[in-house]
Amino acid sequence: MKASNGTPLTDMANAIRALSMDAVQAANSGHPGMPMGMADVATVLWSRHLKFDPAAPAWADRDRFVLSAGHGSMLLYSLLHLTGFEDMTLDQIKRFRQLGSITAGHPEYGHTPGVEATTGPLGQGISMAVGMALAERMLNARFGDELVDHRTWVIASDGDLQEGVSHEAISLAGHLGLNRLCVLWDDNEISIDGPTELSESTDVLKRFEAAGWAVSRIDGHDLAAIDAAIEAAKTSDQPVLIACKTTIGYGAPTKAGKASSHGAPLGDEEIAGARKALSWEHGPFEIPDPVVEAWRTAGAPDEHVAWTERLAASDKADAFVAQLSGEPGQGELTALEAWRQKVAEDKPALATRAASGKALEAIIGEWPALAGGSADLAGSNLTKTPDVGVVKAGDYAGQYIHFGVREHGMAACANGMSLHGGFRPHVATFLVFADYCRPSIRLSALMGQPVVYVMTHDSIGLGEDGPTHQPVETLASLRAMPNVEVIRPADALETAEAWEMALKRLEGPTILALSRQKVPHLRDDNGRDNRSERGAYILADTDRTPDVVLIGTGTETALAVDAAAALKAEGIEARVVSAPCLERFQAQDAAYRAQVVPAGIPCVAVEAALRFGWDGIIGREGAFVGMTGFGASAPAEALYDHFGITAKAVADAARGLLKS
Amino acid sequence: MKASNGTPLTDMANAIRALSMDAVQAANSGHPGMPMGMADVATVLWSRHLKFDPAAPAWADRDRFVLSAGHGSMLLYSLLHLTGFEDMTLDQIKRFRQLGSITAGHPEYGHTPGVEATTGPLGQGISMAVGMALAERMLNARFGDELVDHRTWVIASDGDLQEGVSHEAISLAGHLGLNRLCVLWDDNEISIDGPTELSESTDVLKRFEAAGWAVSRIDGHDLAAIDAAIEAAKTSDQPVLIACKTTIGYGAPTKAGKASSHGAPLGDEEIAGARKALSWEHGPFEIPDPVVEAWRTAGAPDEHVAWTERLAASDKADAFVAQLSGEPGQGELTALEAWRQKVAEDKPALATRAASGKALEAIIGEWPALAGGSADLAGSNLTKTPDVGVVKAGDYAGQYIHFGVREHGMAACANGMSLHGGFRPHVATFLVFADYCRPSIRLSALMGQPVVYVMTHDSIGLGEDGPTHQPVETLASLRAMPNVEVIRPADALETAEAWEMALKRLEGPTILALSRQKVPHLRDDNGRDNRSERGAYILADTDRTPDVVLIGTGTETALAVDAAAALKAEGIEARVVSAPCLERFQAQDAAYRAQVVPAGIPCVAVEAALRFGWDGIIGREGAFVGMTGFGASAPAEALYDHFGITAKAVADAARGLLKS
Repeated sequence: MKASNGTPLTDMANAIRALSMDAVQAANSGHPGMPMGMADVATVLWSRHLKFDPAAPAWADRDRFVLSAGHGSMLLYSLLHLTGFEDMTLDQIKRFRQLGSITAGHPEYGHTPGVEATTGPLGQGISMAVGMALAERMLNARFGDELVDHRTWVIASDGDLQEGVSHEAISLAGHLGLNRLCVLWDDNEISIDGPTELSESTDVLKRFEAAGWAVSRIDGHDLAAIDAAIEAAKTSDQPVLIACKTTIGYGAPTKAGKASSHGAPLGDEEIAGARKALSWEHGPFEIPDPVVEAWRTAGAPDEHVAWTERLAASDKADAFVAQLSGEPGQGELTALEAWRQKVAEDKPALATRAASGKALEAIIGEWPALAGGSADLAGSNLTKTPDVGVVKAGDYAGQYIHFGVREHGMAACANGMSLHGGFRPHVATFLVFADYCRPSIRLSALMGQPVVYVMTHDSIGLGEDGPTHQPVETLASLRAMPNVEVIRPADALETAEAWEMALKRLEGPTILALSRQKVPHLRDDNGRDNRSERGAYILADTDRTPDVVLIGTGTETALAVDAAAALKAEGIEARVVSAPCLERFQAQDAAYRAQVVPAGIPCVAVEAALRFGWDGIIGREGAFVGMTGFGASAPAEALYDHFGITAKAVADAARGLLKS
Repeated sequence: MKASNGTPLTDMANAIRALSMDAVQAANSGHPGMPMGMADVATVLWSRHLKFDPAAPAWADRDRFVLSAGHGSMLLYSLLHLTGFEDMTLDQIKRFRQLGSITAGHPEYGHTPGVEATTGPLGQGISMAVGMALAERMLNARFGDELVDHRTWVIASDGDLQEGVSHEAISLAGHLGLNRLCVLWDDNEISIDGPTELSESTDVLKRFEAAGWAVSRIDGHDLAAIDAAIEAAKTSDQPVLIACKTTIGYGAPTKAGKASSHGAPLGDEEIAGARKALSWEHGPFEIPDPVVEAWRTAGAPDEHVAWTERLAASDKADAFVAQLSGEPGQGELTALEAWRQKVAEDKPALATRAASGKALEAIIGEWPALAGGSADLAGSNLTKTPDVGVVKAGDYAGQYIHFGVREHGMAACANGMSLHGGFRPHVATFLVFADYCRPSIRLSALMGQPVVYVMTHDSIGLGEDGPTHQPVETLASLRAMPNVEVIRPADALETAEAWEMALKRLEGPTILALSRQKVPHLRDDNGRDNRSERGAYILADTDRTPDVVLIGTGTETALAVDAAAALKAEGIEARVVSAPCLERFQAQDAAYRAQVVPAGIPCVAVEAALRFGWDGIIGREGAFVGMTGFGASAPAEALYDHFGITAKAVADAARGLLKS
């Protein structure tokens, strides 16, 4: 098989192999085996099938390529270099895995043009790809083939398929009939520890068939077979798995087919042997001109031109561009503000999950890009708004997805939808089950994707379900994560503000921690300003310098308000600070922080969770009313009493601080 | 089908249904649908097959029964009550989901005799059951059929099978040929949101076959079919899945077969209708004597008696009892101490992961109960000690398990092994991938299971793999969890101490956070005392009252030592505190804490992670040298420089505090 200039595709593949082994050797670190093994498959895909334009990495209608096996990053960097992505210079390849290069150890989204998703944590890539393929169909349902008509391609490893999240993702893809998705499985029978048979006996093709996928098996070094399988995949009405039987480290004289080629440099001697075996007579990092020329014909810039013309001519162009941007437009902002002011006026006493549902209901009609779902807790999370359309196989016009009991796959899917563009995904489960999707939340944060996590039943307030379902450490564990904002609103108005903050935030994910149980309405202002936006603010102040500052979050803010009233009756002046978002508050300037929580005045914080992380706000000397360990199974009111999280306890803590 | 006293099994099953709907109604909270749907299956299993003795819930050779669908807890509580578990009185059933009862919302291990595992977080039960079935075979390989010859039975829901961890668990079970494991899948086609077809299209039987399981499908209300399928399962040479087609809420006149019977009380009228439909003419919580009598013949107390006699006669009795206890005996304690003293003498400069490998190697020969493995990172985690036997299908005599890239399934499996008894499991991966198994770590903590998590590559010190692989928030997220101890040793001697602490700790899990990179040996004492045991201690002190206290953990402790030397040259006296375990230190009495970190002396902490959680130790006014966000891809030394985590930075921070 040859490129249009007569260069054999084998030479083009060998260019990938050479760059990969040279770069890993230069870095003295990395994974040469996978790029060498999958070079043939990648060459056929990228040179003959993938729809992309190296000059426009962000072209909306490009095919998406996800290297789920992110450790083989040199495969992707080689492809980006060879096909002519401007930033991916040979110098970058030579600085593989060095500080400041765009050739990081694993592909990083936002760091390297052409990288569609950050991968490396296994299973995430294939699962995000499901979200991309879903977003493509959903966007297609709205804008038609003329603007949205592309595919999602994945290279996945054995490890990707061993990870549990892959099960959630592939069963979701099968269920939703995402036939624009094709996974090329690098079936090399080698894992880090040795032959995959050390830990694996699964019939992978049968597994995917069971999940509703079309499957085929090919020799991953037979160019014609690869080409035919990929061509066939394009006409499938199911998602497609192609098992590519490959030799890891293909070409390496003694390490090919062995774990020793997986995750370490081959060594100079082995590399020399590989050059010989591959008949690649060029020096390190040297690619002969005909091979470069052949690679530069890859891609479909002409299709990009045609698409740009179609977009310009389309009466949906403005809507398309607006929806792709991900930013709230004037209509959305107005809807959010109007809702905030309406809540301020109505002062409803609702569980914050219910207030969240109402907020979403108020704005979803204005915001076609809002789409999401819950992990089989629609009636609990309350994000399935009335009349919302449900996304189904073959019918992708809706805005609601029944994700099933698949928290991890759901979060990864949301990342994929967000990366794809066109949607602001929201996903929902109980707060405690953030643990089930934590690796994907981490990727939302690392990739800067503004996924909204709607996490209800946020404390012992969920009651009878007991300690397995009661988060006590979950808030702290999420607040600990960089670039995540956890917002735990105190009432319906703060909940409206929280949604506004979440949707206006574009640089990373937001977690809304919402209550099962009802809360009183606490705010008496007109809702003209979003007071939650600085993370914490004075909810109720004293006439003189306060004796004590009471800080509450979420459902416990009401306890602080009650405690302040009790203390006032004794002549103790307590300021009440509502702190829906500690991260935001700590990011404010020192002056604002000192204005809200002044130095030298004793502090009591109340939150139905552990103290861990609170000392940064209230100091070691501050008092904390909350949990000290796991919860228990009982009605919510009984639990609050049992664990001593009451207005009386808050007042007592204040009295204790003032006495000492 | 009838019990020996002539009572129809249908009546016995109806007793479960009645208790379940009555208890949920009384609690006004809970899940009646599943117990009512699976009552027939459970009745056949418990009355005709399950090997147990209600008078001895802890009998070592009992069959294990795991209710993976833990929300159906009333099924299990009904069974425990009806079969005569002493603690499970009718009064407890009536106090379902109330404070202080043993009938918690979800089954809780350690809280309720007869509950083999805490379940409710979906997917965990079936995955722990794999660990139990594995432990049974491994113990059998050591003590033979006469002492170890039992089965593990699971009732699992659709949700259990949707969760990703179930994929990891079932593929591991298939690979290891765990034919003593039988999963009864409640195939009721109903999830919380409605019909499972809303989110699921998987061919479940084909899926399990692909994973190496034997499968069958039955009508879950046909007693003879249930009996035959269970009987057949006992002769399988593979793990077995029995799909039991059931009607959720069986008997309820209008809610049977519907999501409305899943997770809410049926209501008085519906319950009355169900009584009628089931021909159950007894009042709430009333069980007629013949039904009670029939149930009381369930179980196998005679087999328990025979087993006790075999144990008494066995020459392996002492070894068996010792191995089951889980506690380190004198031999183990001596080996740990000897190793500690040897390290103190040798003063090796090793990566702490390497020091960990050596420690494990030194003690594993003394400790037959130690068994574990890694998620395909044997050569990185270094827990595969030389000459250790590998556990394989049909050959369970080894102590090492190749878990594959299945962190979540691995941790759940370890919980199951620990719950089963006979093994102190250790499991290993990179620290950052603690996120992948976090729901199972939480269960280790909640159930008080002393699983040892060996988490290597514990910081940016892992270098080139980059931010996806570099934990920065992971230490904080684990320290936040109740009943978990995170130990991050500074050198080989502290690593020996850390293993000793982990293995002596019986009340919960320990996480060892270990370095990829080499560290100097810091301690010059004779290793006679385990100095890490109090969490933090004075590693190097000053002659007079210190000007500043420098606190380090893990690989950064050496930076604190170097900083102290630099400061001393300027006349600044710095105490160095090594703090391998913050949780232990914070649990010490105030006097010890004040002795190590005195009030009023400025503190600098250094850890290549985020500050979150440290203010409790160093105060808001303390200085922290560490990370402020995600890491980057580069060689480790370059990263430490880039992020400013150096001895110079520590000294500068100390100077800054002393100036202000």
